[in-house]
Amino acid sequence: MADLVEVSDPTDPRLADYRDLRDVNLRKHLEAEHGLFLAEGEKVVRRAVEAGFAPRSFLMAPRWLDGLADVLAASDAPCYVVSEELAERVTGFHVHRGALASLRRTPLRTVEEVLAGARSVLVLEDIVDHTNVGAIFRSGAALGFDAVLLSPRCADPLYRRSIKVAMGAVFALPWTRLPSWESALPSLSDAGFTTVALTLAPDAVPIEDAVVGLDKVALVLGGEGHGLSARWEGQADRRAIIAMTAGIDSLNVAAATAVACYVTSRR
Amino acid sequence: MADLVEVSDPTDPRLADYRDLRDVNLRKHLEAEHGLFLAEGEKVVRRAVEAGFAPRSFLMAPRWLDGLADVLAASDAPCYVVSEELAERVTGFHVHRGALASLRRTPLRTVEEVLAGARSVLVLEDIVDHTNVGAIFRSGAALGFDAVLLSPRCADPLYRRSIKVAMGAVFALPWTRLPSWESALPSLSDAGFTTVALTLAPDAVPIEDAVVGLDKVALVLGGEGHGLSARWEGQADRRAIIAMTAGIDSLNVAAATAVACYVTSRR
Repeated sequence: MADLVEVSDPTDPRLADYRDLRDVNLRKHLEAEHGLFLAEGEKVVRRAVEAGFAPRSFLMAPRWLDGLADVLAASDAPCYVVSEELAERVTGFHVHRGALASLRRTPLRTVEEVLAGARSVLVLEDIVDHTNVGAIFRSGAALGFDAVLLSPRCADPLYRRSIKVAMGAVFALPWTRLPSWESALPSLSDAGFTTVALTLAPDAVPIEDAVVGLDKVALVLGGEGHGLSARWEGQADRRAIIAMTAGIDSLNVAAATAVACYVTSRR
Repeated sequence: MADLVEVSDPTDPRLADYRDLRDVNLRKHLEAEHGLFLAEGEKVVRRAVEAGFAPRSFLMAPRWLDGLADVLAASDAPCYVVSEELAERVTGFHVHRGALASLRRTPLRTVEEVLAGARSVLVLEDIVDHTNVGAIFRSGAALGFDAVLLSPRCADPLYRRSIKVAMGAVFALPWTRLPSWESALPSLSDAGFTTVALTLAPDAVPIEDAVVGLDKVALVLGGEGHGLSARWEGQADRRAIIAMTAGIDSLNVAAATAVACYVTSRR
């Protein structure tokens, strides 16, 4: 059973994990260095704990205690009980969803572990926006994908915003970071995946044609600004395009991913 | 040619259109009451002007003047030239994309005007998030849709955030607000559209089957929280579902829209 600890001093050092949640740069350093991540809202906190992440602590206003009573009962971590005003002062924003938890990160899985048994995989290159990363996880999980591989510069799937947008799919879908950007795609091909890059390259074929009949597929998606690097675009086994209206800017990467995942799930 | 007016006093009343851009509630009132909207960034400002919206004024730091020289040359509205620090003080955020413009709203079109010649239409019920509205416009424009109809409570497509996410598609795609929530779908059916509601209803058929072979289609999409109202769900000519992995939360409305638009565009 989590100890319920009332805290009324906003400078209390036990609240350090929850400080300045809107300061993205500060949080990135703090969370990486302390090996933690934040979950927000009863549903997401519950999913994180059910996925096996160990809480360091919880922080919530009294009215949220009941909803998470079973989770608290099963945990040895302290639960800091604070007023909503104090929660806002510490975190820097109004905590709509009430409950927060700080959880321990686990060591990243190896690529081999993540790919074991997978048939449909997303491979993200330099997608730097937490909202996009979260949206891609959510669509991938909903549309039958088995795993996600991230290039070294992709945004963190365990950042609070990514988790929230993903509706917890970052816990459900196995993922890891690729140790090498250079050899990532050839390694996937060696592992039996057909790598299919979404691109506007001149030799790109419609996505339906690129994936039809394939067994193991790795969909390769580029970053928000300039799309895929020339290296990844060139190294992919196939290049595929989503048919669009002439003269219109391309789809947002999250929308393109949803369409590509849907088509691929029906190959 | 726009008059270039250097302004160094952050309280200058001529900058009123640009105040506190991060305060959503304040801006909603201000923009509605003054019949204006804000465009941000060279590309979006250019598209707004090219789409026929009349600028009330421009505001930018000196280094952005050259990029918009042709737009300024063609306008009689004043251009307030300010330091980046002053722009940040007035607007409340760091203006990454440099140029801002305040433009006059035009009267909303009638539903008949918006539907004239349209074959594929999106109908949004109570989608209250500006990011989602913008993303839906962008996907609709890219995937061959001709028009968007909004229920009375949908978020404003001309809010700064919607415009930005839409990459200007809110200017390209004809849209209006539905005058009546109650009769919206029957009126569309009377106008020759088959209304297809995206829903998890028990009688929903796969989206491919719902749209195959149809001429005029109106895809009907519900809000972020609870999906479609019972009225709209029941009034739609057909109910359709996007096949998903069992046990997973539904797709985000923007992702679902992208998939549904794609499938419908290939009917």
